[in-house]
Amino acid sequence: MATIPITDPVARELFDEMARWPIFDPHSHIDAHRPAARNLDEVLGYHYYTELCHSAGMPADLVDPSLDPRDRARNLAGYLDRIDNTVQFSWLMEIVRTFHGFAPDRITPENIDALYDRAEKTEGLAWDREVWDRSKLEAVFLTNDFDDPLEGFDTERFVPCLRTDDLVLKLHEPSTVDRLRTSTGVDVVDYSSLRQAIGVLFERFVAKGAGACAISLPPDFAPHRSTPKRAVTPIRRALHQMDFRHDEHDEVRRVVFWTIAEFCAEFKLPFDLMIGPIRNVYPTGVSGGRDLFDRRVSLYDYRELFNHFAGVTFPVSTLSPDAGAELVAYSWIFPNVVPNGHWWYSNIPSFIAADLKARLQAVPKVKQIGYYSDAYKLEFVLPKFNMYRKILAEVLADDAIRGQGWTTDRALSLARHVLLDNPRRIFGRGE
Amino acid sequence: MATIPITDPVARELFDEMARWPIFDPHSHIDAHRPAARNLDEVLGYHYYTELCHSAGMPADLVDPSLDPRDRARNLAGYLDRIDNTVQFSWLMEIVRTFHGFAPDRITPENIDALYDRAEKTEGLAWDREVWDRSKLEAVFLTNDFDDPLEGFDTERFVPCLRTDDLVLKLHEPSTVDRLRTSTGVDVVDYSSLRQAIGVLFERFVAKGAGACAISLPPDFAPHRSTPKRAVTPIRRALHQMDFRHDEHDEVRRVVFWTIAEFCAEFKLPFDLMIGPIRNVYPTGVSGGRDLFDRRVSLYDYRELFNHFAGVTFPVSTLSPDAGAELVAYSWIFPNVVPNGHWWYSNIPSFIAADLKARLQAVPKVKQIGYYSDAYKLEFVLPKFNMYRKILAEVLADDAIRGQGWTTDRALSLARHVLLDNPRRIFGRGE
Amino acid sequence: MATIPITDPVARELFDEMARWPIFDPHSHIDAHRPAARNLDEVLGYHYYTELCHSAGMPADLVDPSLDPRDRARNLAGYLDRIDNTVQFSWLMEIVRTFHGFAPDRITPENIDALYDRAEKTEGLAWDREVWDRSKLEAVFLTNDFDDPLEGFDTERFVPCLRTDDLVLKLHEPSTVDRLRTSTGVDVVDYSSLRQAIGVLFERFVAKGAGACAISLPPDFAPHRSTPKRAVTPIRRALHQMDFRHDEHDEVRRVVFWTIAEFCAEFKLPFDLMIGPIRNVYPTGVSGGRDLFDRRVSLYDYRELFNHFAGVTFPVSTLSPDAGAELVAYSWIFPNVVPNGHWWYSNIPSFIAADLKARLQAVPKVKQIGYYSDAYKLEFVLPKFNMYRKILAEVLADDAIRGQGWTTDRALSLARHVLLDNPRRIFGRGE
Repeated sequence: MATIPITDPVARELFDEMARWPIFDPHSHIDAHRPAARNLDEVLGYHYYTELCHSAGMPADLVDPSLDPRDRARNLAGYLDRIDNTVQFSWLMEIVRTFHGFAPDRITPENIDALYDRAEKTEGLAWDREVWDRSKLEAVFLTNDFDDPLEGFDTERFVPCLRTDDLVLKLHEPSTVDRLRTSTGVDVVDYSSLRQAIGVLFERFVAKGAGACAISLPPDFAPHRSTPKRAVTPIRRALHQMDFRHDEHDEVRRVVFWTIAEFCAEFKLPFDLMIGPIRNVYPTGVSGGRDLFDRRVSLYDYRELFNHFAGVTFPVSTLSPDAGAELVAYSWIFPNVVPNGHWWYSNIPSFIAADLKARLQAVPKVKQIGYYSDAYKLEFVLPKFNMYRKILAEVLADDAIRGQGWTTDRALSLARHVLLDNPRRIFGRGE
Repeated sequence: MATIPITDPVARELFDEMARWPIFDPHSHIDAHRPAARNLDEVLGYHYYTELCHSAGMPADLVDPSLDPRDRARNLAGYLDRIDNTVQFSWLMEIVRTFHGFAPDRITPENIDALYDRAEKTEGLAWDREVWDRSKLEAVFLTNDFDDPLEGFDTERFVPCLRTDDLVLKLHEPSTVDRLRTSTGVDVVDYSSLRQAIGVLFERFVAKGAGACAISLPPDFAPHRSTPKRAVTPIRRALHQMDFRHDEHDEVRRVVFWTIAEFCAEFKLPFDLMIGPIRNVYPTGVSGGRDLFDRRVSLYDYRELFNHFAGVTFPVSTLSPDAGAELVAYSWIFPNVVPNGHWWYSNIPSFIAADLKARLQAVPKVKQIGYYSDAYKLEFVLPKFNMYRKILAEVLADDAIRGQGWTTDRALSLARHVLLDNPRRIFGRGE
Repeated sequence: MATIPITDPVARELFDEMARWPIFDPHSHIDAHRPAARNLDEVLGYHYYTELCHSAGMPADLVDPSLDPRDRARNLAGYLDRIDNTVQFSWLMEIVRTFHGFAPDRITPENIDALYDRAEKTEGLAWDREVWDRSKLEAVFLTNDFDDPLEGFDTERFVPCLRTDDLVLKLHEPSTVDRLRTSTGVDVVDYSSLRQAIGVLFERFVAKGAGACAISLPPDFAPHRSTPKRAVTPIRRALHQMDFRHDEHDEVRRVVFWTIAEFCAEFKLPFDLMIGPIRNVYPTGVSGGRDLFDRRVSLYDYRELFNHFAGVTFPVSTLSPDAGAELVAYSWIFPNVVPNGHWWYSNIPSFIAADLKARLQAVPKVKQIGYYSDAYKLEFVLPKFNMYRKILAEVLADDAIRGQGWTTDRALSLARHVLLDNPRRIFGRGE
């Protein structure tokens, strides 16, 4: 197994203990039917590598989906040295060392083929289990489309999560309504039948042990209370793909979102809010590498939601790194607002460390969800959690043990809250 | 006395020296007639504890004002373990150790009664003096309502400060006008008599040795110059509780604020601006725990004020932690803008450290007001100042002594500027 | 030579090696005809000293341009102790130690005359060369007015850069059009002839080896694509100093900016974007110390530009310190967006360190332009670069060598990318 470099002996001891714990991963994009990577292309295809190499000069067509997987890997290997300073590259090196026994310091066009051979897994199911066991995984949450049948996998391990982006943001697209009708059997034609269909989705997901409902929301979305009455006409226009104005689209987004929050209350599901992304800001980027954000966002826009749904827990992730301090304040005041991990553009060590310190100093320890992997393949869960656990160990060594005179046990107990106890309890697992 | 853990010997030496200095506290909410806590409920009633425990799951009615104080304390004790990671909790532990000789590591339902007994003070005046002396207090600024008679206390120690929130933001409420008429004897009916009444307030406060005028302002307030002429009608409507439009309310806020600034210029009083809070964002929260902010604020909105009142010193506090860097720039350019302490949601070690480093690197040393307690009870002044002094010691050890090769004396001289020399001079005390 | 204090031996080793490298400075305001300071007044006249002393209480008329240079220096010396905590003051001390052999710890009214004498340089050209050599300068970029004849200096050392602020932001001022007509020989009367004139400027600058085009843009500027057709009338009004509305001014700014970007594409010049300053926010400040910013900016406003001009490299500097994290994200995604140095209000160690850590963790190493001096006199290049190199050494020691187990060589190779390889390549020098 790869060694995580930690020079401070106090942090080392904390990390080594945490590394013995299981991993509870409350948000990922893992495919439960194919959780681990079958080959190196499925690792290198993670958008971080393709987008960073593209940003560093690699033409997008070198990783085109139509290419042979091995060729894509070869092509990418020619650019990896340009991004070998990034934390994302360090996850890759930890993966090839830990899971593929790859010894070299770098991945180059010269050694990529040997590595590709090593990483090829024909016994898929056995490999899934091996990665699972070596990572000490306890549970990994999925992000399921609303029409996912949720069948054929162990929902104790791969916990379903109802993703509602399409319903809220793309209700006016024909495929959304079609999928909704097909998957629920409800003839969705107006707000009333739409509501009924969403109820069917919640019933199915909850029956399958869903841990949460989730959505990612753009900066211009402000979830004000909407009355179905006002939304009747816009909803009807959306469902029938009629032309509708921008303010009507807003109305549709708001009322569908509010309806989903009502179901979260009824079914006692946490509602993960992932706030900030704007899709397709860089349309000619590689797949998965086209979204960015506008940093001018505030949780103040969410006050009505947090007040109205006092009984719903909202694990909140914010995309813009400079929005992290505001989330600390809102989590400190609202009982139902919970800071959730460190997401995407905020998921690099310097931003994590700053956010983590503030959360540990000002948010009740029972409310913090330390980390989630956001991974697409199982191999990424371990290195990403190790990055977080290392930072957590270093912050606790500095701020709690040396800074406040805490014992190692007290520091570890806090770590356990944010890594295990809280996510298990908040997402209805164990305890 | 409680020991403050500091492992770096250089920082230790700096801290130990600062701990021998008096404390000059230029902003608090202390009641001069009852400065120290008479019992533990008055300590635990600080909104930080009730709001954090409430955020961590404690029902608000467990700390309802109608309850018996000891019961409130007992109820809260059942939830304190959930917030024992927070810096606010560390202030509490320092208080019970320093002032009540309480030895246990934690406050629990089992030991809360013994602690409550220890903290009960029947000899109030003697206790006030004891806390004052053991904290080495030199002066504590109050935050007085405009109709406070300012009598019955030593204004050298408890320095009056004219709080003007009600006048600017709530002039249209009947109680404001009534209080203003009663306390000034002026028959306030229009802008002219309003101005006259405000002048009476300034005269009374200055005669009593007031150190500053202060106000907290919401993010949507932009202090543009207002002409009394344009405000005549809105002011009249406000004073007579007639219906008035949102833009008229804006006009009223602006003209009253501008008028107060004019009196600050005339009476040579610093005008503390506390920028950012929005009241009652979470209306069902506990008392004192309902306000938040919108992070989208900028001091650019204050340019006209800073330019027009070149002779008025504006000690500025910003609520949103991410607004701290902008305050550094405005303090670096405007002679009359002074960074003032670390406030409320920004008053936690990680935010303080970041802001402090930047201020020490870029704002003239004679302009920085290091810290104020914002406390409601005298016991909190010491632990809050100790938190700040520890961070200051660590930053000076790192950035000045090791980082720039400064001597200990030079570092201490800088510390003395921000802790003592500057606040004394800026608020007209000594020097 | 002055010693830079660094206590960590790992960082020390890195710094000492970097200090042997040449300095490639891709942005300054150096006057190629008079690069080094002829006397101390030209050092102390740097706006940082006059604005900080003014902010600390020095009347602006003590440094009035009409005064005798020695008197200005004497006047300023009386206030330097008030700003001796700032990083800007530390540059000054490094200059007087390194270049003038000045031993005292402080600059005071008592020793200012002796220092003034030491710093007086009658042999200007020899002194220019001495400062150049002792600083190990390789190239320094200028910021040239568009009508600069670019003659009489070595453009290999002093690299021209076309500053376009006046063209974009002040086209309606008579002097701009006059200068444009005079310097290009084009009779600029409409969009078409304006475009032709700008083309002439580009030809002249590129013929002289220009390294970049540059502009500083206010927060309210959003570079949306503009059609010359829509701009025909506003442009004509601007060129003939006719009254024009605010939205017409916007249109003029947008179309001229877009036109310049088109020439950058045609001539393959990088386009330095310096985003954020608002001019004259504090009009009664000292010269150069009147500009500030509004922190509510976002690179999202630049998406159309970055997408449309995929072939133009945009080295981006942002003024508001809290905008730095967003620049990391945009540089990580857009191949043509490059984070460029640490600018003005963001150019202090605590902000540099935070931004640098994030860039090193998340932006491809081949895209980062580490630093530029922004200096007006050659003496400032070395201390400013030393400040940056020290922070870089400390961050690499912490995050890369100790934090990731890198070798010293690997860390130095990364340093070399950001200090030398990247700026040389991006600005078309060497490689």
